[in-house]
Amino acid sequence: MIEMIIDKLFDRVEHFGNVCIGLDTAPDYIPEAIKAQKENVQDRLFEFNRRIIDATKDIAACYKVQIAYYEAQGLRGLQAYAKTVSYIGDLKIPVIGDVKRGDIAKTAQMYAKAHFSGDFEVDAITVNPYLGIDTLEPYYDYLKKGKAIFVLLKTSNPGSGTVQNILSKDGKTVYETLGERLMEEGQQHMGSYSFSSVCAVVGCTHAQEGERLRQKMPNTFFLIPGYGAQGGKAEDLKGYLTNGNGGIVNSSRGIILAYRRDNPDNLPFDEASRRAAINMRDKIKQAAGRND
Amino acid sequence: MIEMIIDKLFDRVEHFGNVCIGLDTAPDYIPEAIKAQKENVQDRLFEFNRRIIDATKDIAACYKVQIAYYEAQGLRGLQAYAKTVSYIGDLKIPVIGDVKRGDIAKTAQMYAKAHFSGDFEVDAITVNPYLGIDTLEPYYDYLKKGKAIFVLLKTSNPGSGTVQNILSKDGKTVYETLGERLMEEGQQHMGSYSFSSVCAVVGCTHAQEGERLRQKMPNTFFLIPGYGAQGGKAEDLKGYLTNGNGGIVNSSRGIILAYRRDNPDNLPFDEASRRAAINMRDKIKQAAGRND
Repeated sequence: MIEMIIDKLFDRVEHFGNVCIGLDTAPDYIPEAIKAQKENVQDRLFEFNRRIIDATKDIAACYKVQIAYYEAQGLRGLQAYAKTVSYIGDLKIPVIGDVKRGDIAKTAQMYAKAHFSGDFEVDAITVNPYLGIDTLEPYYDYLKKGKAIFVLLKTSNPGSGTVQNILSKDGKTVYETLGERLMEEGQQHMGSYSFSSVCAVVGCTHAQEGERLRQKMPNTFFLIPGYGAQGGKAEDLKGYLTNGNGGIVNSSRGIILAYRRDNPDNLPFDEASRRAAINMRDKIKQAAGRND
Repeated sequence: MIEMIIDKLFDRVEHFGNVCIGLDTAPDYIPEAIKAQKENVQDRLFEFNRRIIDATKDIAACYKVQIAYYEAQGLRGLQAYAKTVSYIGDLKIPVIGDVKRGDIAKTAQMYAKAHFSGDFEVDAITVNPYLGIDTLEPYYDYLKKGKAIFVLLKTSNPGSGTVQNILSKDGKTVYETLGERLMEEGQQHMGSYSFSSVCAVVGCTHAQEGERLRQKMPNTFFLIPGYGAQGGKAEDLKGYLTNGNGGIVNSSRGIILAYRRDNPDNLPFDEASRRAAINMRDKIKQAAGRND
């Protein structure tokens, strides 16, 4: 039987909570201790990630690796990306490639191949829908093999409304119209817990919008960025979730840079990350009304 | 003085015509002759591209390299991508990285760094605007240094309307609303020929829409995909252009696979590409009313 990553995500959220740790690792985040050990940028990026993963693997529901940070370091950076996603995969923990790819026809097939097989293989990727619902089709063959996609719906940046919030003639925003289409598409790819492998990205900086989308899209699992640094609060998250499940909440710098920002005990960077992840997990559990 | 790529594109269109050759190279496009010479996928991809570039460099206005095809081959594919864009750059011919990236804040900065410096440096990239106009800002520092961006407006795929054609309350499509915003943004980045470094992607499979956008966006240079294989015709192109300039027309498989598709004389693949590029250039010139 095929293991569906959407089921595994649901199970991990039940067991470990909603935290998705974002490994958006830039070379200037690396502490001196690692720089002294490792000479090359690719080794430094990977070693930093590896130690955070090892310190948080019983706290995080999953990891999200933001490919842009690695692409910015060229080929060597992408070596570190490949090594990081493969390390997480070997631990049997869900790993999302935050690649926000989006293209048409055969080109979309190429992106699907790039991120669901080979060097960069991950369990799920983020996808940009601007080019149309038909551009999602090349990913469906992989969903049948257990993979998942997170389609950008409503993002967490201040200017996200330029396109996403345009009001159509029938009084719906672009992201609502798109959400309805995604729900339909998702029906063909349902997991065991009534959540589909066609998932959505819904930022937690727009609490009312998130709550409305949750009501309209009961079978869509959410990746929720914007927590912490971008202003999203635990209190706002309850409405995005269903009995505390149905979504993962991403934090990147809030966790991986905790050693610089919130570290009165001067913990090593990986332990500081662990503490930040535990705090975040517990805050969300409490806000979601799950104090088990 | 800074050389602006938008000016160089305009000059090259004046001199060489409107053809943009799309190097969307998949391993199964490579002829046996190259496979016999080169063992590794990265060497094969690069050698195929190199020979096409050498055979067409006095025909093409520019090249567009579709990164998805290389990403699909993992790290080795991206080596070939890096080598290809750098080879074109060394010839002083404009090269567009068709990467369709789009992300927010610091992540967008990382994509700008990834594609406007280092291993993957190109003269211009394609950018996805779904996340909002504010997500273009990180690219502007590079525009000041002469680079350009092509923002997806109206694409050439059959399903492009899902988001792009949603009609707003005030009777405009999403792509028209976005086009107006792009025009405004572009005013800060004008080149010497009244075309801005903030350019747009407008597919040639929607001739009336293209013509209307040209009228509304007189200062926006267009990258026009969809020619040939996707159904776009030379006759339809006149309306996208201004006195035959203001746009480049991309063809990928129509040129790089000409040796398989339209090769009665059994020319070597690079010569077949050259002939296809010349045909396309001349057809567009004629359709645009430029028979100089």
